Amino acid sequence: MSGPLPLDELHGSLSDPLLDAMTFLNEATSRYPEAVSFAPGRPYEGFFEPADVHDYLDAYLAHLTDRGLGPEAVRSTLFQYGPTKGVIAGLVARTLANDEGLDVPPESLVLTVGAQEGMLLVLRALCAGPDDVLLVSSPCYVGVTGAARLLDLSTVPVPEGAAGGPDPDAVRSAARAVRAGGRRPRALYVVPDFANPSGTSMPTEARARLLAVAAAEGLLVIEDNPYGFFAREPGSRPTLKALDRYRQVVYLGSFAKTCFPGARLGYVVADQEVRAPDGRRTLLADQLAKLKSMTTVNTPALSQAVIGGMLLRHDCRLRAANARATAFYAANLGTLLGELERHFPEPLRSRIGLDWNRPEGGFFAVLTLPFAADEAAMERCARDHGVLWTPMAPFYPAGGGERRLRLSISSLTTEQIVAGVAALARFIRAEAG
Amino acid sequence: MSGPLPLDELHGSLSDPLLDAMTFLNEATSRYPEAVSFAPGRPYEGFFEPADVHDYLDAYLAHLTDRGLGPEAVRSTLFQYGPTKGVIAGLVARTLANDEGLDVPPESLVLTVGAQEGMLLVLRALCAGPDDVLLVSSPCYVGVTGAARLLDLSTVPVPEGAAGGPDPDAVRSAARAVRAGGRRPRALYVVPDFANPSGTSMPTEARARLLAVAAAEGLLVIEDNPYGFFAREPGSRPTLKALDRYRQVVYLGSFAKTCFPGARLGYVVADQEVRAPDGRRTLLADQLAKLKSMTTVNTPALSQAVIGGMLLRHDCRLRAANARATAFYAANLGTLLGELERHFPEPLRSRIGLDWNRPEGGFFAVLTLPFAADEAAMERCARDHGVLWTPMAPFYPAGGGERRLRLSISSLTTEQIVAGVAALARFIRAEAG
Repeated sequence: MSGPLPLDELHGSLSDPLLDAMTFLNEATSRYPEAVSFAPGRPYEGFFEPADVHDYLDAYLAHLTDRGLGPEAVRSTLFQYGPTKGVIAGLVARTLANDEGLDVPPESLVLTVGAQEGMLLVLRALCAGPDDVLLVSSPCYVGVTGAARLLDLSTVPVPEGAAGGPDPDAVRSAARAVRAGGRRPRALYVVPDFANPSGTSMPTEARARLLAVAAAEGLLVIEDNPYGFFAREPGSRPTLKALDRYRQVVYLGSFAKTCFPGARLGYVVADQEVRAPDGRRTLLADQLAKLKSMTTVNTPALSQAVIGGMLLRHDCRLRAANARATAFYAANLGTLLGELERHFPEPLRSRIGLDWNRPEGGFFAVLTLPFAADEAAMERCARDHGVLWTPMAPFYPAGGGERRLRLSISSLTTEQIVAGVAALARFIRAEAG
Repeated sequence: MSGPLPLDELHGSLSDPLLDAMTFLNEATSRYPEAVSFAPGRPYEGFFEPADVHDYLDAYLAHLTDRGLGPEAVRSTLFQYGPTKGVIAGLVARTLANDEGLDVPPESLVLTVGAQEGMLLVLRALCAGPDDVLLVSSPCYVGVTGAARLLDLSTVPVPEGAAGGPDPDAVRSAARAVRAGGRRPRALYVVPDFANPSGTSMPTEARARLLAVAAAEGLLVIEDNPYGFFAREPGSRPTLKALDRYRQVVYLGSFAKTCFPGARLGYVVADQEVRAPDGRRTLLADQLAKLKSMTTVNTPALSQAVIGGMLLRHDCRLRAANARATAFYAANLGTLLGELERHFPEPLRSRIGLDWNRPEGGFFAVLTLPFAADEAAMERCARDHGVLWTPMAPFYPAGGGERRLRLSISSLTTEQIVAGVAALARFIRAEAG
């Protein structure tokens, strides 16, 4: 072969510090299989039953028959290529109405391969050129910075306020600074409830202010809500989409935590009217579907059938279906915060410079150490004390969080959390001297 | 709201003539539900049985248990997030060995959400900047031009030769012309067997020459093989990957036609050694997996479990499992070509300026009319004669094919094909005058 293959000049974004951090974490997890791991944000598995998959599938197929489809149409729905926007939008819309008080027309929904594909599609539709900028909170969920990286799209971090979520005033300043620099701020990505990684939530008053700032600055708000379900007091705060008067919010949903991750099913609510290239008015959802035909063609009918069946079996009410899981996560978070308090009461924690936040739900809490919470520290903690956690620094796009670590309680039992916090306390005492 | 939302400046690629053509076709299909449709490239549904899904799922779960996984690990494999590269690479590699004579290590495989996601990942990895160019055959499958469009990547069409597939000399010329224009030709996308839309296949001799040209010009070859299975004489021609001496071929596979589309399961074989940003040698598959974490995180475990179970139930031999389907498609293609011959024997067809190609397998054949095979003609044919087909012009990235139409036989019965060709003949006679 005379010509060199172009394999040593792969696209630059493959050198992602965050991906490297995740790789390190995965490797550490496999090196210390006996450690208590506060690292993974995956749901608890104790409620999953393989037999349920058969039951859900049958429920969905029976539903199609009940709606008047003959055996051939049922077969076609399950086995064939399907509509790019998906086949269970009606069931998802009913669930959103029941659980979130969101009244959205099914045609504004696009079913996606996880919320991740939804992020990719929304960013791709909105950001037209190299001058377009996405605002993200800092710390930020890695999925959205990853999607932006795949598209070579610039992101500008907005610091989370003390109350949780991106501070509305900081959003305004960031949008104006971007514009002053000759670029166009297009959208703000935000996880208002129990954000990953910080665990914090935006106060209701800040939500209204954020929407007002976004409207004034011409920003679309991309609301990602995988954890809002798991509040200790359900319904205490409205989603941004529920407060949305001007259709300025695109809502990303996921069934990974409320149903199960293995279906990889998410959805986008994009009820914005947009002007198509030919001048016709259409829904943003329809434009996203066109882009989806270039990423995955359509979302697996199999996944939609099984999740659709699960929705049907629970009367399109996932809050009720998740009552056990919600109680479980709330109890786990209570255990974590209680055990931290027990091991590090005041004035001890102030004296050694330790602190943590107190999320009101979700999967995550953040601990601030008196020393660097880096990969080396994580390795020592795993090796000497049998506990794993996630360094926070890689979640800060513009730096920060060097002394912070994320603790996830979602996949652990009470006993593991108690033992894990005890071991973590030993580590902190040893390192803090 | 004082600031305008950025919704009237969506990303330009949403105005895709091909997407518009597909939309028109879908609308025509729903306007003429009684028409015989030679349009869709979907597999025949008569062999699909919903009960099989239960059986395949059970087969895969039993396989996990047989391999020594306890109930918790089985549950985790099915329900949780999984490895980005997938969980059934071993089964797919065995199937490739049995059916295609391809010996590829499982670690060089990435399971994807259809071959479409595989295309997107490969293009994204290879094409680093605005000067990078992908060569494609003309006419070309719409999925790859779509993926390139999503990534704002330039494509340069290479005409298919008379024998089928991109002509190796034309590939060399195109690569050199691109380079002479200051840009970098990075890869060639090709469907060597029963291409969509042309139905043609590359002769064996041209395959070897194509690989030699690609090597000399420093092009990676992206081989997409969804139809190779459905040859009237199986195994008559080797895949490019089977001829690959220098690991210059990335192979895209799909289970949409050999299993079923509703699982949306495909895979990439990327056994190339590449240099990671940190200097380490790694497989291209591992770099693709990093990108996949930004598109869909991982491929649904549910889809992998059901297709994995189907592979297990057929001893990882899909050729044997597809014997009935293969015979069905071959008979359908024979019926199509025979009926065309019967309605338009020589010298009639030469006199009116009609012709068609004679593929040796697959789903498609192409008819050249003595008049424009455009959307208006398709509409007249549907309205007055009850037959639908696909205009070819949108498949030519640089123009061409204006008098050509694609006929697909995959989802029709013999009777429908006989009646459809008779009606098509009436249309052609009426229009040709």
